[in-house]
Amino acid sequence: MSRINRQITLAARPVGRPQESDFALVETPIPELEEGQFLIHTTYLSVDPYMRGRMNDRKSYAEPVKLGDVMVGEAVGKVVESKHPKFDVGDIVAGSIGWQEYCVTDGTDIRKVRTGNQPVSAALGVLGMPGLTAYFGLLEIADPAAGETVVVSGAAGAVGSTVGQIAKIRGCRVVGIAGTDEKVAYLTDELGFDAAFNYKTTKDYVAKLAELCPEGIDVYFDNVGGPITDAVFPLLNKHARVSVCGQISQYNATKLEQGPRLLWKLIEKQARVEGFLVFQFIDKFRTAMVDLAHWVEEGQLKYRENIEEGLENAPKIFLGLFDGENIGKQLVRVSPE
Amino acid sequence: MSRINRQITLAARPVGRPQESDFALVETPIPELEEGQFLIHTTYLSVDPYMRGRMNDRKSYAEPVKLGDVMVGEAVGKVVESKHPKFDVGDIVAGSIGWQEYCVTDGTDIRKVRTGNQPVSAALGVLGMPGLTAYFGLLEIADPAAGETVVVSGAAGAVGSTVGQIAKIRGCRVVGIAGTDEKVAYLTDELGFDAAFNYKTTKDYVAKLAELCPEGIDVYFDNVGGPITDAVFPLLNKHARVSVCGQISQYNATKLEQGPRLLWKLIEKQARVEGFLVFQFIDKFRTAMVDLAHWVEEGQLKYRENIEEGLENAPKIFLGLFDGENIGKQLVRVSPE
Repeated sequence: MSRINRQITLAARPVGRPQESDFALVETPIPELEEGQFLIHTTYLSVDPYMRGRMNDRKSYAEPVKLGDVMVGEAVGKVVESKHPKFDVGDIVAGSIGWQEYCVTDGTDIRKVRTGNQPVSAALGVLGMPGLTAYFGLLEIADPAAGETVVVSGAAGAVGSTVGQIAKIRGCRVVGIAGTDEKVAYLTDELGFDAAFNYKTTKDYVAKLAELCPEGIDVYFDNVGGPITDAVFPLLNKHARVSVCGQISQYNATKLEQGPRLLWKLIEKQARVEGFLVFQFIDKFRTAMVDLAHWVEEGQLKYRENIEEGLENAPKIFLGLFDGENIGKQLVRVSPE
Repeated sequence: MSRINRQITLAARPVGRPQESDFALVETPIPELEEGQFLIHTTYLSVDPYMRGRMNDRKSYAEPVKLGDVMVGEAVGKVVESKHPKFDVGDIVAGSIGWQEYCVTDGTDIRKVRTGNQPVSAALGVLGMPGLTAYFGLLEIADPAAGETVVVSGAAGAVGSTVGQIAKIRGCRVVGIAGTDEKVAYLTDELGFDAAFNYKTTKDYVAKLAELCPEGIDVYFDNVGGPITDAVFPLLNKHARVSVCGQISQYNATKLEQGPRLLWKLIEKQARVEGFLVFQFIDKFRTAMVDLAHWVEEGQLKYRENIEEGLENAPKIFLGLFDGENIGKQLVRVSPE
């Protein structure tokens, strides 16, 4: 009798904001392993804003998920069966496992997890793609110098909170933008941001930023786009760098939104705006991970995980990202560690 | 009896498009030279789109012209009197002379002109700031590789026509955007652009660009901003570079115009948008000028000058820039060579 896998598949292509009905929970038999394959039992599943793009029927930097296919995503799990020479039963692994309880794989895009003294779930956050995204987006794209002012939007998320702390390690003045008072307190009280504000209770973003950034803005790490980003541009300093990591405010737009034209500002300030994907830095992942792990062990880089239970709840938890519900890394526990 | 200078001053701050009444022609006596000064008789005056910014009462990268002051501008002239140890009567000089027939100066921002076999007016165009702007904006900001596709807007102007030809020297496929059929013919027939189109008679810029850039756009040199620039973004290739030199379509806007939000595209394509001012490259002006002069002498870099007569006509000729009347460098002849 074959064992049963539970999977979340893409049931419909969303128009605008996704709904739970765009996903389906299906049960399928787990195939027998072939030579060179192994079976992963998922422990934690990561949900991230970028996954919204994969639900569209349009090639972006990656292929869209096909209707009926398992949703893509990074997860951590345990090897429970193996016919693979390099992966043994009991190994903890992470990678492109997808939204499912079990995954049969030949090891493509799967790596063994080494999180040291940290929980294995950190491999999906500060010691995984979000940590690397923060690291390269800040240090390679923007390269802030000590004393410069760095503004981060989406500052309480997995990426933003790491960006701000790395900027502090660099000796910068760091200002965070987030969507609840609790997040603002977390940034300034726990993570050491110099200042932060709640954009949902602030009317004039430009005035607030001007108050919190009296010497202007040298680096802006953009996770959100839209009106928050518009407010940063008038305050950019000469030779400012804008690192464009995410545009969560735009992902559910049904047509290209309009905003103020800002390119003239780039001339005036001889400034640069650059988009990036973490995978363009893949050759440097190993050294970055050494830095990140070191900072975490030293207590210079803190992180928080927001863990919700149950694969069947993954769609709802994913949708919560667009309401800004999470502080730190949003995870779904699929099975006990 | 003192001699009389004729000057064009800023009479009023324009709202939106400037009018001739925003300028005044005044006559003032030329002061006697002090030790260390010399007197320039202006030959050619340059009018450039950037001057629109100086007419506003708002500091941008440079101070605004004060009401009643002589309009700023580069000019070429002849030294006609000198109490300066390094400038002699008969020297041909160029620099920040302003919109006036005579200029008393201590030599600040004035250099001797060496245009070799080219007319002295070239010091205001291909062998002056426009040439340097094209050179650094293309080679330092965008750094195109052979085989890449380079799109240039404002392509028939002093800067744009130089950009396209330098990109051809680099071995790129070059596509120009201009505003008359005559300009389009000039770009493709005389300057060797691979393709060009008239945006005033083209309805769908994106479709036209897609047709002329079958392999997408690697580099965009932006002189204009607005809807033309919007049309470039969807066609940007991975690792595309946008060099933002000018935004002439926006200079007369009375409030910040709206346009489509484009930052998401930068993430998808890991692309970069960067504004610049030619003066940030001042340490490299000398070597750039050697390259430009060499290309001109070799016939690889052609240029055209559009010379109109009379200081008193400078305002009208300047206003013509916003109608796209000029092919190549727009100059005003103030006195015979």
